[in-house]
Amino acid sequence: MSQVAPPRRQPKPLNGVDTPTLFATIEAVAGAPDLARFQFRASNRWEKGTQSRTRIETFSGAGGEHTHIGDVEFPADHPKVLVGEDKAPTPVEFLLHAIASCLTAGVANIASARGITLTEVRSDVEGDIDLRGILGLSNEVRNGYQSIRVSFTIKGDAPPDKLRAIVEQSRARSAVYDVLTNGVPVTVSVNAG
Amino acid sequence: MSQVAPPRRQPKPLNGVDTPTLFATIEAVAGAPDLARFQFRASNRWEKGTQSRTRIETFSGAGGEHTHIGDVEFPADHPKVLVGEDKAPTPVEFLLHAIASCLTAGVANIASARGITLTEVRSDVEGDIDLRGILGLSNEVRNGYQSIRVSFTIKGDAPPDKLRAIVEQSRARSAVYDVLTNGVPVTVSVNAG
Repeated sequence: MSQVAPPRRQPKPLNGVDTPTLFATIEAVAGAPDLARFQFRASNRWEKGTQSRTRIETFSGAGGEHTHIGDVEFPADHPKVLVGEDKAPTPVEFLLHAIASCLTAGVANIASARGITLTEVRSDVEGDIDLRGILGLSNEVRNGYQSIRVSFTIKGDAPPDKLRAIVEQSRARSAVYDVLTNGVPVTVSVNAG
Repeated sequence: MSQVAPPRRQPKPLNGVDTPTLFATIEAVAGAPDLARFQFRASNRWEKGTQSRTRIETFSGAGGEHTHIGDVEFPADHPKVLVGEDKAPTPVEFLLHAIASCLTAGVANIASARGITLTEVRSDVEGDIDLRGILGLSNEVRNGYQSIRVSFTIKGDAPPDKLRAIVEQSRARSAVYDVLTNGVPVTVSVNAG
């Protein structure tokens, strides 16, 4: 009766997630909370019309400065029907990329921590927006999305209820879901002339 | 005394913005509000670990279906310090791309509508986040950013106060600023098994 706690499972790498290092990271941060303070950064440069490019190069966290080693430059534009040249998706569509990829990374980490092998994770996101807001045609229509819907398909070596619980836990701990649903203070300053 | 309204300025293309078409679009939507109903979409597919890719291909609006003609596929990952492979920026960094590029597209459109030629528009964005939230180490720390700061540099053929007013008007009509500061309902559904 003394062993009521389940035996601690030895984590193994799974789904491409280095699960032992993930657990070690969480333990390290638990012991030194300042390691958890991150600052992410982006620098955007206008090109012409509605086109711009953003570089996402450096960030701080885990007690140091870091430089990304993968893709770091991303474009944005407006479509032709909104008087752009459609060189790239609109800024609001990158919000959909952010929510889908955040929930999906969480799903992979959580499944791996739970010892579940995933075979497929897909998600489709839709956002409804009434552009009378941003076009200045109505003060009663908000500028941004009115609603966003994310629909996941998830397959792996666990029953459907356990797979659904992984998505739910990812949602409950998603940074992007929190920002999109609860909002965040944004300040805008200008150096002009 | 009958002509108190200023003479209507004939808009000209400026800054790479097709200003006449922009005004014509706004007039068309004013006359047929249903044209303003847009739906943006994204489809994400998990690759491995924290890596996934999102395709942003189609959207509806202006009374029809449309397919993007520019870049449509974008990756996301976690950095090595967060147990990813750093093939691409994190999902939360794409939120910074979204806010910078949205404000910048608005700046270009508004400057052009006001007859102001821009020579430079840059912005730096920072977001502060305490990862004890998403790591499940604290229920008092939020999962998402605690604050986001956007710093613009804008130059053109207008006095600084008019250039600052362009950024302010862009902020006031930005779809991404609205979503990030006010939040939006996000629903997540799951097809498992």
